[in-house]
Amino acid sequence: MQREFLESSDAVRTAQPLKHAQSVTFDEPLTLEQGGHLPQVTVAYETYGTLSAAHDNAVLVCHALSGDSHVARHQAGDSPGWWEILVGPGKPIDTDRYFVICPNILGGCRGTTGPNSINAETGRPYGSDFPVVSVGDMVEAQKRLMDHLGIERLLAVVGGSLGGHMVLTWATRFSDRVAGAAALATSPRLTSQALAFDVVGRNAILRDPAFDGGQYYDHGSGPAVGLALARMLGHITYLSQEAMTQKFEAQRQKPHDVRSEFETKFAVGSYLAYQGDKFVERFDANSYLTLTMAMDLFDLGDTQQKLIEKFRGCGTRWLLLSFSSDWLFPPFQSQEIVDTLIALNRPVTYCNVQSNCGHDAFLLSNEVDIYGEMVRAFLDNLSGRKDAPPKDAPPQSAARGDCSPTSIFHERRLDYDSILELIPPGASVLDLGCSTGELLARLKLRGDARIMGVEQDQRAIVECVRRGLDVVQADLNQGLSAFADRQFDYVVLSQTLQAVMDVEKVLADVLRIGQRGIVSFPNFAYWKLRGQLAQQGRAPRASMLRYHWYDTPNVRFLTIADFEEFCRDKGIRVQRRIALDTETDRQVEDNPNLNADIAIMVISQ
Amino acid sequence: MQREFLESSDAVRTAQPLKHAQSVTFDEPLTLEQGGHLPQVTVAYETYGTLSAAHDNAVLVCHALSGDSHVARHQAGDSPGWWEILVGPGKPIDTDRYFVICPNILGGCRGTTGPNSINAETGRPYGSDFPVVSVGDMVEAQKRLMDHLGIERLLAVVGGSLGGHMVLTWATRFSDRVAGAAALATSPRLTSQALAFDVVGRNAILRDPAFDGGQYYDHGSGPAVGLALARMLGHITYLSQEAMTQKFEAQRQKPHDVRSEFETKFAVGSYLAYQGDKFVERFDANSYLTLTMAMDLFDLGDTQQKLIEKFRGCGTRWLLLSFSSDWLFPPFQSQEIVDTLIALNRPVTYCNVQSNCGHDAFLLSNEVDIYGEMVRAFLDNLSGRKDAPPKDAPPQSAARGDCSPTSIFHERRLDYDSILELIPPGASVLDLGCSTGELLARLKLRGDARIMGVEQDQRAIVECVRRGLDVVQADLNQGLSAFADRQFDYVVLSQTLQAVMDVEKVLADVLRIGQRGIVSFPNFAYWKLRGQLAQQGRAPRASMLRYHWYDTPNVRFLTIADFEEFCRDKGIRVQRRIALDTETDRQVEDNPNLNADIAIMVISQ
Repeated sequence: MQREFLESSDAVRTAQPLKHAQSVTFDEPLTLEQGGHLPQVTVAYETYGTLSAAHDNAVLVCHALSGDSHVARHQAGDSPGWWEILVGPGKPIDTDRYFVICPNILGGCRGTTGPNSINAETGRPYGSDFPVVSVGDMVEAQKRLMDHLGIERLLAVVGGSLGGHMVLTWATRFSDRVAGAAALATSPRLTSQALAFDVVGRNAILRDPAFDGGQYYDHGSGPAVGLALARMLGHITYLSQEAMTQKFEAQRQKPHDVRSEFETKFAVGSYLAYQGDKFVERFDANSYLTLTMAMDLFDLGDTQQKLIEKFRGCGTRWLLLSFSSDWLFPPFQSQEIVDTLIALNRPVTYCNVQSNCGHDAFLLSNEVDIYGEMVRAFLDNLSGRKDAPPKDAPPQSAARGDCSPTSIFHERRLDYDSILELIPPGASVLDLGCSTGELLARLKLRGDARIMGVEQDQRAIVECVRRGLDVVQADLNQGLSAFADRQFDYVVLSQTLQAVMDVEKVLADVLRIGQRGIVSFPNFAYWKLRGQLAQQGRAPRASMLRYHWYDTPNVRFLTIADFEEFCRDKGIRVQRRIALDTETDRQVEDNPNLNADIAIMVISQ
Repeated sequence: MQREFLESSDAVRTAQPLKHAQSVTFDEPLTLEQGGHLPQVTVAYETYGTLSAAHDNAVLVCHALSGDSHVARHQAGDSPGWWEILVGPGKPIDTDRYFVICPNILGGCRGTTGPNSINAETGRPYGSDFPVVSVGDMVEAQKRLMDHLGIERLLAVVGGSLGGHMVLTWATRFSDRVAGAAALATSPRLTSQALAFDVVGRNAILRDPAFDGGQYYDHGSGPAVGLALARMLGHITYLSQEAMTQKFEAQRQKPHDVRSEFETKFAVGSYLAYQGDKFVERFDANSYLTLTMAMDLFDLGDTQQKLIEKFRGCGTRWLLLSFSSDWLFPPFQSQEIVDTLIALNRPVTYCNVQSNCGHDAFLLSNEVDIYGEMVRAFLDNLSGRKDAPPKDAPPQSAARGDCSPTSIFHERRLDYDSILELIPPGASVLDLGCSTGELLARLKLRGDARIMGVEQDQRAIVECVRRGLDVVQADLNQGLSAFADRQFDYVVLSQTLQAVMDVEKVLADVLRIGQRGIVSFPNFAYWKLRGQLAQQGRAPRASMLRYHWYDTPNVRFLTIADFEEFCRDKGIRVQRRIALDTETDRQVEDNPNLNADIAIMVISQ
């Protein structure tokens, strides 16, 4: 229902901006990527907040297929905007701090030039004569608006879905005009499945007899059936299977009391009929055709090589967010972009937010404490706000690092001190399993330039972004093929090896990606632990302070001797070994496999 | 494309059986579940093979939405049937052994009474006057056919999707007439998401002006656009996202050369246009409305309590198969049925077959070596064929049991001998992590009546079914809530505990489901292993014959003392402990935590 934020209004089909929108007309013809041109372009837009004197606080918000310029309320009595949860005073995109611009997109039907605009050549609405526009054309129109507003460089461009396609286009084409790009629930191009749904929706409109070749404005209702069918279909794809079950299962055969000529037998049918009918009141079928085609033609490439070409010149800082149950823009598509940025050594943070809400998740409040906070912290970092206090820090237990104290004797991560000493200042560092970013933050404080983390826990990633760190979400066991050979001077795997299943793959990645790898792990041949097994007949419990054999996250039990044999067998060079007795807080020289409870190994190929 | 098995033919819209079909008309009126009746019912069907003298080899195959009676070729020159890969001489449903019957379903358009049949009252086709029929009505018509053929009891009913709904209906309503039920890619009722797609498809047909209230037979082409749109939509839901990517991505913007009034701009669009247009030639829109509504109304219940009521009286043997990428009939829906059958203590085998092919997987050859072989073995078991030699046994390494020899000294599972001695003859036994069913097969040989296995590996499950065992696929770490308290006399967890992550949950299930639990595990305090750590400083390698610390499937390391402490802490009673030294093949009485390499514990709450 969340997409149905607009009241039915007389603005429909007359290309009028919404109540609060301003508009500006550019008389210079716009040459279109797919051929042809538009003799002039009008852009309707709304703004929020105040542009700073330095013009350095502007955030462009790009709406999706059926959105418009009304991203949020301007004052209390307004109708709510489509991203009310993210945009407003004190919200993640804080209008007390940022100057927010949201334009209606080219080809839409809410004030910006689209198929329902008057074609100067004929004096009638364009209808089907409206040319094919691309996402690039939409961005070109937005760029004219930025020029008009005197904004040379945007602090950030933010958007989801089709709006995310615009973010990607801004950042890849006009990188010098964008400091940060936040793209939610988006992709380098649609999946064939998503494209197929668009095709069926367009066919429903195009083959509706009332479509009448697209010139239906003068008479009748237009292709109301076809547009409603397309919208019904869209709604299914915006929700997840789980979300639909929650919404409709309890009352499956008890439909809402909806008047419609569509089938209303089942609860879900009455919902779809309502959504379909209502959409027809506020949206223009020709715009639907135009915008879905722009989305379908959007294509940054189907191979990483092509993506690398597109993103090569891009100097923006990135935030990519996908949603786990989004099957219209599946997470792997955001990961393709992330992989490309990693391969290009660009600053990027990525999280696949756990959600049951499907594609719509980025519009809903359910997971806003994760994705909203990431957007907030990302903008904070861009605008140089230092040490912003975490608004509501996650409970300690949410972060995994917390579960891995150095040893059974010390809560403090003594191994970090040694690891910091091993890394020369200025080196580039990748921390695998970085948790909330404690080690990376210490490196950052020291001034290390190119540092990055990999972590699985989404709350830990929020903490990392708040610390100004770049972290991508990944499961180490799945491999880190996105990273290039020798991409970092040092790859750190601190107190993580014992918790991974695929040790060989993870260590191979450490050695491949780093000039040097630094691996720390608990030594199960420490004399106290040997004693536990030898004298007491009990499983060793190092690094298991709060755990027993049956509930520890650790699944690999190794000794320094085991690790060194592994290195010999695999042809791995051990550059240095630091063995610690953390009880006495000293390095062990004498028989470390007996006397050290923690080992830190510097390795290389 | 696999659904497009039929040539366009003049049989369409005239309710004529297909070339090889026979038909029989029943003059007794059929009272319908949703109200009304059909004055008479004609059933078109095809048969394969020969009915045995005892009439005990009949297999009923139920087709899905757009199928028909032509399930397979009758002879070499025939057009292929829709389940050619499963039905035929030597195939899993072996027509050399079984008498196979495949009727066209009630409401269809291929010879069995449907909306395009002549309504005796008006002398015209029923059209929209055709009453609402249910899956139960379809089965009622099939039952009349069985009576007509003199088949009192079916060896098996087999079907997928809507055909699976018929299997479920046969087995729950006429349990005494069905020995075995094999239901593929099906559900107790549709998800709201699947139902929503049906609603949109029906709306496309119903709102097509050419639908003309359903009486389009006399004039024009009927609701060709609406029916084609519904079919396009159907095709998207039959494939998975991955399958569509494989099929269309490489040539995304290079459509097939298809003549169609539908959009053919993209490869996937040309495919959908072709499928849509072709379907209109062979299928009747009113049948589409009738059959999808029957599917949408099919509802065995949305809670396990309701399902239990439905399945309570059911005495058939069960095979349930789902497909991992099927999002139209997602695996969790098959699991709901399996859980119900487990709760009712019914013989059931279940596997979620790994597949990229989506819902269509059950019609495709890709995974037929798994699901076809399960159907074959299931029918073998029903027909009493003993010791059927595995057609092509999987490589040894595919089965996990093979990876768990008793100890570092013996390949043979010596612990099985002890476990067998611990279980009194006639006891009911559940084996968790049963692998290829070696222990269960020994129990079965001994005559134990109610034995069952749980296993994750699908090839191991195929082996179990070949051995005549009932096995359900499950991940022990996810819990076994389907099993009732005290459902079995013994629950066995042999050499599996050390490989599970959630030890507490698994042991809680063992104790809850069994009167007694029998748990065997390697003892890491065995003196040789203590020595490895104490003297050599190496991680213990018991039960790791072929493994190192970094690649073992074992993730839990415990000693007999650890386990006994665990039992004390959790209030678990240790009824008996057998400690084995498998090197000398003897039981250990003296200090077992030092002298035994394997422990077998009999535990209870």
